[in-house]
Amino acid sequence: MKPLIAELIGTFALVLFGCGSAVLAGGEVGQLGIAFAFGLAIVAMAYGIGPISGCHVNPAVSFGAFIAGRMTLNSMFQYWIAQFIGAVLGAAVLYLIASGKAGYDLAANGLGQNGWGAGYLGEYSLVSALVFEIVATFLFLVVILGATQKSAPGMVAGLAIGLTLAVIHIVGIQVTGVSVNPARSFGPAVIVGGAAISQLWLFFVAPLIGAALAGILFRQKLLETE
Amino acid sequence: MKPLIAELIGTFALVLFGCGSAVLAGGEVGQLGIAFAFGLAIVAMAYGIGPISGCHVNPAVSFGAFIAGRMTLNSMFQYWIAQFIGAVLGAAVLYLIASGKAGYDLAANGLGQNGWGAGYLGEYSLVSALVFEIVATFLFLVVILGATQKSAPGMVAGLAIGLTLAVIHIVGIQVTGVSVNPARSFGPAVIVGGAAISQLWLFFVAPLIGAALAGILFRQKLLETE
Amino acid sequence: MKPLIAELIGTFALVLFGCGSAVLAGGEVGQLGIAFAFGLAIVAMAYGIGPISGCHVNPAVSFGAFIAGRMTLNSMFQYWIAQFIGAVLGAAVLYLIASGKAGYDLAANGLGQNGWGAGYLGEYSLVSALVFEIVATFLFLVVILGATQKSAPGMVAGLAIGLTLAVIHIVGIQVTGVSVNPARSFGPAVIVGGAAISQLWLFFVAPLIGAALAGILFRQKLLETE
Amino acid sequence: MKPLIAELIGTFALVLFGCGSAVLAGGEVGQLGIAFAFGLAIVAMAYGIGPISGCHVNPAVSFGAFIAGRMTLNSMFQYWIAQFIGAVLGAAVLYLIASGKAGYDLAANGLGQNGWGAGYLGEYSLVSALVFEIVATFLFLVVILGATQKSAPGMVAGLAIGLTLAVIHIVGIQVTGVSVNPARSFGPAVIVGGAAISQLWLFFVAPLIGAALAGILFRQKLLETE
Repeated sequence: MKPLIAELIGTFALVLFGCGSAVLAGGEVGQLGIAFAFGLAIVAMAYGIGPISGCHVNPAVSFGAFIAGRMTLNSMFQYWIAQFIGAVLGAAVLYLIASGKAGYDLAANGLGQNGWGAGYLGEYSLVSALVFEIVATFLFLVVILGATQKSAPGMVAGLAIGLTLAVIHIVGIQVTGVSVNPARSFGPAVIVGGAAISQLWLFFVAPLIGAALAGILFRQKLLETE
Repeated sequence: MKPLIAELIGTFALVLFGCGSAVLAGGEVGQLGIAFAFGLAIVAMAYGIGPISGCHVNPAVSFGAFIAGRMTLNSMFQYWIAQFIGAVLGAAVLYLIASGKAGYDLAANGLGQNGWGAGYLGEYSLVSALVFEIVATFLFLVVILGATQKSAPGMVAGLAIGLTLAVIHIVGIQVTGVSVNPARSFGPAVIVGGAAISQLWLFFVAPLIGAALAGILFRQKLLETE
Repeated sequence: MKPLIAELIGTFALVLFGCGSAVLAGGEVGQLGIAFAFGLAIVAMAYGIGPISGCHVNPAVSFGAFIAGRMTLNSMFQYWIAQFIGAVLGAAVLYLIASGKAGYDLAANGLGQNGWGAGYLGEYSLVSALVFEIVATFLFLVVILGATQKSAPGMVAGLAIGLTLAVIHIVGIQVTGVSVNPARSFGPAVIVGGAAISQLWLFFVAPLIGAALAGILFRQKLLETE
Repeated sequence: MKPLIAELIGTFALVLFGCGSAVLAGGEVGQLGIAFAFGLAIVAMAYGIGPISGCHVNPAVSFGAFIAGRMTLNSMFQYWIAQFIGAVLGAAVLYLIASGKAGYDLAANGLGQNGWGAGYLGEYSLVSALVFEIVATFLFLVVILGATQKSAPGMVAGLAIGLTLAVIHIVGIQVTGVSVNPARSFGPAVIVGGAAISQLWLFFVAPLIGAALAGILFRQKLLETE
């Protein structure tokens, strides 16, 4: 039970801080600030709840860990439930705070949801979105699985993983808003609705493919020390 | 006595650097720069005075540590006194430096004080301010108490905690200027006066509530390893 | 074989994230954001693939390690091949993503290639470019060889090295776009062609000179603890 | 001899990267970028040359270490010579690179020199400059002496100290350009001349006072664990 409370709190914080930086502060801190918000949210939670749950806070991370043989299928499903609940709660609290600003309009301002195509940030194509999300999640998982393998110096892993998420956001916000995390996409989408829902499939499929590819590399011991 | 000198210096530095970045440099470094200033002030002091006092530099942090059973009530009150004195001294030195600029006007430029509502940054409602400060302090304390528990790798804790304060500021400066720390709010308020004083209650109440909630989770061992 | 897979993935990530930040996000995150993207890409890979290959992801780094007596000539050549393949693949995937934006024009937008002189960023002279690349690579290698010597605390080396690359980019993007890495220059150049190809020689010669100078200092034990 | 080579290279890098970010990139990366350049230059050198010399790269740091009883007077003077030579070389190489840009004018663009008063950045008074430099150097030395005391976790000290210099720059660039380091002020001043020379005294006096105050606190064991 303790790991599930931890994952719920961690995913809650990731959505509240990450999406919150876009919604509450995007005009002030820019996309570099948003990128650091997502990354530092992971740094925060890696040290806050990491000792309890490993701080996945991302269904794709749990899936990669399962494929790599580091987690049971049953644990993965439990983690998933906690992560999705946390993400929806994070989006809900963010909406509560954001709506306290005079003139806030959910449809116009959004809630940090992911997307692509006409009307979404850089207006990149579906193919660009798909390739970016698969490759970015693959590299994210390479860092996570590499930095947390038994022979690795665990103490700094949380910092390295968070800063990896920051660089992924620096690069990709214009393309998809950056998901690499189905729960992070799900939370805002259920509140915002519309295109965020109809495009949600990509942010489930692509991260899971990318995570699986990395998981296989580690399961085959191709990126692990003996 | 040594921990109290340390807490005084640490809270002095937090206010001077954090509020100082807003007052002396806000127009140049933006809210992302201000957020990093608050966060890196904590990183600095965590390694500078942390070995002596644990670097609370925040009455809400000491309160959370007390609730979690990691500090005596008596020590907490002593820490509080040192923290409030340090914060006022920090605000005073900041005012001394800031007033050396031709055309500086305390009423117009402020001193990095917290607030909400009409005329304050993003003009968020009281409810938004209250929810943000409670939730942000809660998550801040989850990181602090999680990262400093006995089984955690203490070496990187100061860095993780400081970067957590940075992300909280990235997200929340528009909402309340971000307190999560009664002493940090008190220092500038006593010099600036006006709304900063009449709104001070929220920056005492909300952080203490958030800290208590996190403290209870840890006292109940729900986020601690055995 | 495992180190070569690791170097290929690592150099792929460096080019995709580093050059990608310039191409996909440069207008949003600015040169500070680009600098952090290059730096954090190294942080990511240092912890992701570092345990397998040492995360050189840069022919000049492998050359410096060889000169310092820490790598065989044969290993160096194998690393070089993996690094160049990874860089070209990274540039190719970046091109694929970038071209999914309506109105993307390879000639006009470029692919994060290096250069100097008329029409290239700050329009610095050949001498400026040469001096900067030699000195910057020398200092980069001083950090790498110093931070990874036997007596050094290896755990934080990846972070320090990545942040070193970030500061080099903060300083030098206007001058050459910053190479200090022949593979990073080669990847985009083969796709973009033109001046990027005709100026490529400098980004092979200068980094190798800088790396050799640092390598000699360490081979002579002038910057190593006994 | 080895520590002196290390200090020379380290101070060279600090001036080249720190002042270089202002001169070559200030318009692009802003004062937040400059602040990170100074801070990350220290991070770089702490891990590159720190194992050899402790990475003072600053006469005030060596003075504080002497006052605290951690360095002999003789070693301090040797360090000072290496630091001043390194700083002048760093400024000279920076000038060489900067002058390779068409239209570069030393008098108009400067070389990242320190100063105060009419015509210098925020145009702060002499008193503001003096107070800021004393207090900032004092706090900088508190972090340095606290983070490197015997009982401290040395591994992360270089990172914490560098990030401390970053936050000091975020706050103070508008006030004095931030020295806290006589050598860093001396290097550009000897090349630029003029006001940078006539105001140089403050950037020798104030940092040494601040460093001495911190050194005394540590010599009296008021901020040291037993």
